[in-house]
Amino acid sequence: MQQFLYPDRNQWSEIAARPVQSLAEIEVRVQPVMDRVKADGDSALKAFTLQFDGVELSQFTVQEQEFEEAAQLVSDDLKQAIQVAIDNITIFHQQQFQEEMPIETEPGVLCWRKWVGIEKVGLYIPGGTAPLFSTVLMLAIPAKLAGCKTVVLCSPPNKEGKIHPAILYAAQLCGVQQVFKVGGAQAIGAMTFGTETVPQVYKIFGPGNQYVTAAKQLAMKAGVAIDMPAGPSEVAVVADFTANPDFIAADLLSQAEHGADSQVVFVTTDEALLEKVKAAVEEQVSILPRMEFARKALDNSRMILLESLEEAMDFINEYAPEHLILQVAAPELLAPLVINAGSVFMGHFTPEAAGDYASGTNHTLPTNGYARAYSGVSLDSFVKKITFQSISEAGLKKLGPVIETMAAAESLQAHKNAVSIRLKALK
Amino acid sequence: MQQFLYPDRNQWSEIAARPVQSLAEIEVRVQPVMDRVKADGDSALKAFTLQFDGVELSQFTVQEQEFEEAAQLVSDDLKQAIQVAIDNITIFHQQQFQEEMPIETEPGVLCWRKWVGIEKVGLYIPGGTAPLFSTVLMLAIPAKLAGCKTVVLCSPPNKEGKIHPAILYAAQLCGVQQVFKVGGAQAIGAMTFGTETVPQVYKIFGPGNQYVTAAKQLAMKAGVAIDMPAGPSEVAVVADFTANPDFIAADLLSQAEHGADSQVVFVTTDEALLEKVKAAVEEQVSILPRMEFARKALDNSRMILLESLEEAMDFINEYAPEHLILQVAAPELLAPLVINAGSVFMGHFTPEAAGDYASGTNHTLPTNGYARAYSGVSLDSFVKKITFQSISEAGLKKLGPVIETMAAAESLQAHKNAVSIRLKALK
Repeated sequence: MQQFLYPDRNQWSEIAARPVQSLAEIEVRVQPVMDRVKADGDSALKAFTLQFDGVELSQFTVQEQEFEEAAQLVSDDLKQAIQVAIDNITIFHQQQFQEEMPIETEPGVLCWRKWVGIEKVGLYIPGGTAPLFSTVLMLAIPAKLAGCKTVVLCSPPNKEGKIHPAILYAAQLCGVQQVFKVGGAQAIGAMTFGTETVPQVYKIFGPGNQYVTAAKQLAMKAGVAIDMPAGPSEVAVVADFTANPDFIAADLLSQAEHGADSQVVFVTTDEALLEKVKAAVEEQVSILPRMEFARKALDNSRMILLESLEEAMDFINEYAPEHLILQVAAPELLAPLVINAGSVFMGHFTPEAAGDYASGTNHTLPTNGYARAYSGVSLDSFVKKITFQSISEAGLKKLGPVIETMAAAESLQAHKNAVSIRLKALK
Repeated sequence: MQQFLYPDRNQWSEIAARPVQSLAEIEVRVQPVMDRVKADGDSALKAFTLQFDGVELSQFTVQEQEFEEAAQLVSDDLKQAIQVAIDNITIFHQQQFQEEMPIETEPGVLCWRKWVGIEKVGLYIPGGTAPLFSTVLMLAIPAKLAGCKTVVLCSPPNKEGKIHPAILYAAQLCGVQQVFKVGGAQAIGAMTFGTETVPQVYKIFGPGNQYVTAAKQLAMKAGVAIDMPAGPSEVAVVADFTANPDFIAADLLSQAEHGADSQVVFVTTDEALLEKVKAAVEEQVSILPRMEFARKALDNSRMILLESLEEAMDFINEYAPEHLILQVAAPELLAPLVINAGSVFMGHFTPEAAGDYASGTNHTLPTNGYARAYSGVSLDSFVKKITFQSISEAGLKKLGPVIETMAAAESLQAHKNAVSIRLKALK
């Protein structure tokens, strides 16, 4: 890890910078995949699945029997753990639904919002080195709570033409209606344009490699919404002298193991702790199965020593981490200072892994500094809030002249006329 | 207007289709503008303002004296009208803030969300044929309610180097801190990258022509968020035999006058009404100052006769209009059927113009079918909802094994270890 001792504030933006990633080159390779899925539908999916996943599939839809097999392959322990996670995620996301009452902004002018689930949503779950069934929970639970009518899921098949049983088990448990064995840019293309098998959706959620990320950007251009722009995962830990260096090292490594491009930042006010964390990281990394990823991620990562916790929080807000762990004596004093972060973990016994799986918060969060402007996935991500207004005759008599005056001042005569013609009828 | 009598359902998607708009060509012209603003800052702004707006400016920041002049140029009538609109918009958006209580998802596991205003936001207000000071209200009021710290506004200068007084007056009244006389793609570039004068922001809001729209898409690629993808404005009116054809014609025209590319859709169950509306449109359009725009928009617009109001709502949900006016005897019976729309106007005396200016709802709404997945601008658009979690020692003892099981099943050993190392310390 790179080390910065009491850096000047004018150095901060450099220290907080992420490696620049350009998808332009990848877009050029992904565009033809999207185009061909749009043009050829299922036959394109077949060809790409053979080419990229190395398996020839006669059908993409996961069958009832495969779900049953999957349920048998998942251990009882894991089933129980998944159920606890589902319960907690459900409780936390359910309360995000807010009953909104109509407001009478003027006498006779009633305004309100109706929350409506996005009708058709698509969830993408990567295959690859870790079977992310936890992401199924994080996306499918709020989708169902929001009342989305069509919830489909795409995930790449392995060489045997199968999806990991825990993914299938979680999908079924969360009420996903259709699961398709399609991955990569071709899956995003299928959900964007629809094929004979895969339905077109209005919004696509979920993580993925840079091909999937580029495909989601192209999906946006084709009119489909996406959850948020994606980048490598990242964590920042802020710690004072009360922190346990082993805990910190474990948290840093739990992020670093995600991939070589993961970002890990450690900010402290205690120079002795810095050295201890360095040693603990070295000790713990050597026994990790994903050590290779973790070591590469650590090379890009940063330890920063600052004067005060207030200064540390200023730096954090400049960095805008996806995950922020506050391993300090009084995290409740720092919480009000958090402006830019995706999800915050308070105190010594709240590891990021808790939020990744089971505390109840969502783990689909803004990376790459996007926490400055974006929230993580929540119930909001799956609903639209449609505004309504209802104006009585008396209400229009009162508000009408205001509208007429403003419309005239904007030189929009027909806007004014839509009111005038009604006021005349009311005379 | 094109007319469709009892069209087959399989024709609907064609009738509901918008003209395809490609920004690819415009992007090619906008990219160098963005690049030059990034590289040269204010001096690029000066050059582009001379080139595109035909005026040479020595400074872009609107001065105190200009605000004072503007306030004197706005009539008392208009000032009063603006104040009513501000009051109503404030009331409606204020109540969108929801106090969220921490939830104990498990004993010892506390989760909550904190609403934080996006620190720096930029508002774009077009110049051109209509001075949209109403859009200043629609963007600046929720920005201030959300607690955004930096709120800047860009709008193009006219040939005299000035911004319309009503825009300046509204901006000052709504607490916008800095207003810059910069327009077009160069304004979006300035807020994306920052210049010596214009601060960089995290999210850009506001309508604009296709250059501005293309620039906002490029801003997204550069990491800045935007309010929503933009397209031409549109209205759909659903009416039964109780509707007044003159009201309908006025509403259709109030949309059509926006521009030649505006979309107007009229759906009814009453064939006689169809003819009457046609006649009323013809009568009203001929006396409009913006008749030319309106006539062109009408050429692309559609009247559709359907069997029932339920069928009409099915069509509306397929079309997903930005604005939907329900001029029927019992709009409250149709409201529950609304799935895809931006803002809905209930009954005979609720013209779209009411929402455009003063009912209290926001007029920045999803166009081009985006209402399937997007909401209009609201307080949500200006805040991030940051999740927090705080786990006690007892809480981690209970939840820890769940996390360990799930992490192990995802082959993420370091995630598991972040819990195990803490559980060990608690023994």
